[in-house]
Amino acid sequence: MAASQKCLGKGSAAPDPVPKDHIRLYSMRFCPFAQRTRLVLNAKGIKHDIININLKDKPDWFLEKNPLGLVPTLETQSGQVLYESPITCEYLDEVYPEKKLCPSDPFERAQQKMLLEHFSKVTPYFYKIPVSRAKGDDVSALEAELKEKLSQLNETLVNKKSKFFGGNSISMIDYLMWPWFERMEMMELKHCLDSTPQLKKWTEHMLADPTVKATMFSTETYKVFYKSYMEGNPNYDYGL
Amino acid sequence: MAASQKCLGKGSAAPDPVPKDHIRLYSMRFCPFAQRTRLVLNAKGIKHDIININLKDKPDWFLEKNPLGLVPTLETQSGQVLYESPITCEYLDEVYPEKKLCPSDPFERAQQKMLLEHFSKVTPYFYKIPVSRAKGDDVSALEAELKEKLSQLNETLVNKKSKFFGGNSISMIDYLMWPWFERMEMMELKHCLDSTPQLKKWTEHMLADPTVKATMFSTETYKVFYKSYMEGNPNYDYGL
Repeated sequence: MAASQKCLGKGSAAPDPVPKDHIRLYSMRFCPFAQRTRLVLNAKGIKHDIININLKDKPDWFLEKNPLGLVPTLETQSGQVLYESPITCEYLDEVYPEKKLCPSDPFERAQQKMLLEHFSKVTPYFYKIPVSRAKGDDVSALEAELKEKLSQLNETLVNKKSKFFGGNSISMIDYLMWPWFERMEMMELKHCLDSTPQLKKWTEHMLADPTVKATMFSTETYKVFYKSYMEGNPNYDYGL
Repeated sequence: MAASQKCLGKGSAAPDPVPKDHIRLYSMRFCPFAQRTRLVLNAKGIKHDIININLKDKPDWFLEKNPLGLVPTLETQSGQVLYESPITCEYLDEVYPEKKLCPSDPFERAQQKMLLEHFSKVTPYFYKIPVSRAKGDDVSALEAELKEKLSQLNETLVNKKSKFFGGNSISMIDYLMWPWFERMEMMELKHCLDSTPQLKKWTEHMLADPTVKATMFSTETYKVFYKSYMEGNPNYDYGL
């Protein structure tokens, strides 16, 4: 599946066309948004290949496919191009019927989308706090805000009385939120889960999921990548 | 349909339960986001009632239903509550099969979502420019940015060679973008369409749509409301 292929940058040769019966993901190995799509591809067992992109020095052939230059970007065999992580994930779930990840009930689907909208206000803290900390600023106010938002997620689980956000089995919303939790230890934010026991338990259930296991990186690996990223010289190929 | 009912504020009596076979929209008559849902309700001929909310002084019973206090909010007969305008619109299109507004093809559906994501970066200009102008600031740079974004929308229409954004008949994405165009004259931004002829033509096609006609307000009405809004005392019931 070529997920472990070194990234391609400016001047690289354009990749071969998308193989028959495959879909292609343009990704960056440590990008949490692209990981959403990797999780869905893996969970559904979709035949795919992955082209990793050097995001600091993007190939022209990639910018021709997606002028916004974003990952994740999906490319189908007929040359259709899709981007924005929730859109790519929903598309995959609609086109590939095996193991549906979105609920079939329209209201439950809407609930997952509302939760995702709420979660989109959580993710910025995973950048703001480490950046502030690196500058030597006091991050206690930001951490309190993050904890407040996490406690709302905790309450959602408590009210649902379920292991996962969509019920007792894993579904789309769990995969869409997971990548940031996988990085909490690396970001030294794990203590923010101390007062949200249900949410903490959810992270444990997630870590037991075969798809999560197959697509994750270790905290040590993230630490190395993140350090290189903060120094302005991201080591996209670290560990290959 | 009670769309012309005066708004309810703090201290008002809670409305009766949602009538049989109806869905309820909590709205504000001049809100462009709530207008998206009004357009979809109207286009699909869905039986509904509308409760207008005083957004400066929200009723407690409304905040109990939706603690975020947002409009649009939908309430079903069984008490399900939905918010975020694209989520409410998509839900209505999924639950009410008459006159489907979203394309049936997953890639076309994804394209409309990508366009909506692009458009979400256009709407802030409809606030930033008038606010800057009211302060006496030079808005030419902001207008240039808006024109650039509008020219991308124009190009989409040129490439599609179609009257509307989803083809030659009106569809979901047209209704989701329309409310801001309806307010362009009031905001003295109509000249920003001078170099985007296909987009200008689209606004003319939209104005000929019976649903747009049935849900719109005149520029004169918007001017009065917007003036009261800018003065900090929004006249939510203007014209009733």
